[in-house]
Amino acid sequence: MSSAQMPSAVVLLSGGLDSTTCLAIARQRGFRCHALSFRYGQRHQEELAAAARIAQALGADEHRIVDIDLRAFGGSALTDDIAVPKARNADEIGSGIPITYVPARNTVFLSFALAWAEVLEAQDIFIGVNALDYSGYPDCRPQFIEAFERMAQHGTRLGAEGRPITIHAPLMQLNKAQIIEAGLALGVDYGMTISCYDPVEGRPCGGCDACLLRRQGFAAAGLSDPALEQPSR
Amino acid sequence: MSSAQMPSAVVLLSGGLDSTTCLAIARQRGFRCHALSFRYGQRHQEELAAAARIAQALGADEHRIVDIDLRAFGGSALTDDIAVPKARNADEIGSGIPITYVPARNTVFLSFALAWAEVLEAQDIFIGVNALDYSGYPDCRPQFIEAFERMAQHGTRLGAEGRPITIHAPLMQLNKAQIIEAGLALGVDYGMTISCYDPVEGRPCGGCDACLLRRQGFAAAGLSDPALEQPSR
Repeated sequence: MSSAQMPSAVVLLSGGLDSTTCLAIARQRGFRCHALSFRYGQRHQEELAAAARIAQALGADEHRIVDIDLRAFGGSALTDDIAVPKARNADEIGSGIPITYVPARNTVFLSFALAWAEVLEAQDIFIGVNALDYSGYPDCRPQFIEAFERMAQHGTRLGAEGRPITIHAPLMQLNKAQIIEAGLALGVDYGMTISCYDPVEGRPCGGCDACLLRRQGFAAAGLSDPALEQPSR
Repeated sequence: MSSAQMPSAVVLLSGGLDSTTCLAIARQRGFRCHALSFRYGQRHQEELAAAARIAQALGADEHRIVDIDLRAFGGSALTDDIAVPKARNADEIGSGIPITYVPARNTVFLSFALAWAEVLEAQDIFIGVNALDYSGYPDCRPQFIEAFERMAQHGTRLGAEGRPITIHAPLMQLNKAQIIEAGLALGVDYGMTISCYDPVEGRPCGGCDACLLRRQGFAAAGLSDPALEQPSR
């Protein structure tokens, strides 16, 4: 299939392990990928630089970064001056709604992806959400993705014209080890990715929920994390 | 009911006739109102100044303006260098999807309203959409509002905790004359509002769809438009 015949997809890309794997899967499924990242008042900017490098390395057609101000409302350790919890018991991560939950974040992110998809006339959007590791986040559950997809049919020109929009969440039911194995099979270099909520001088902190889940994932896959083997980023 | 007992609502407020009426209705229904406007690359900024004045005049608790960049994707006469259509036949306004449609605009706006509602723990959001005048805009139809409301139950902490979110669209089935009559009954001064898509030196152009619908609305109500009686704004 020539590039011109390939359908376009918008792919949400944070620069982390999950969204990078999601981009690799979208490419493997034959989509021209339009990668979308957000500068949303998160504590660190390294992940946006990583997202740009990953978009290029994985052959995305383009990568855009949109500024949005989720700090205007507050309410999360990822956007406010609230301490990121460290060294929690693994069992605690999935229970309750964590302080690192950003209110309606995936709704806002998918809304922008939908706006871009309308302009591109793209009927496919990819998001790397995962219900197993992030069961405490309501906007990472399959019911949310399905409800967003239904809303997208009603709220867009594409949907009104009978061209349905599909929200792909290919990692939804995978555990971290399975996500890593899927990515490695597609040639992903996880040394390029950043997962940490609270990096120190560009290095993962090792103690936040994201670092803990990532470490457990590599261990369960019987692998070492290439991001930890590099002297600096 | 004392102010502390009144439930909070987020009210989308553009500074136009419809959203101003919607705010007056939310106040009349007993809500503490948190008015939300967007600086989204629209051609003119006068409506944001009008929104601030209206929020204060109608007794909103607060008014916030959030910067978002819908120009990043393009695709509408309201955000791009595309001419706003003028002096169309009234019958044409409702047919097809107009060039003034901003892709997924109400989805994006409601997503931010939802994020703020989560932080406020507000279960009510008001939006002044209208299916009669804007039948060409898919994101102004009742099916869209209902689908967004369902999505909001799944994608938020409030919804996950069994506190459902209601998207109020009190103007949905009103014609422009009925909207104006409802607002006047609540004491709205429509001289404060700006509806025009393409004002010239702060004055309505008189020829765009928004100006045409507004003029017809005042005429049908047997009234003159106070915004046209002022020498300048």
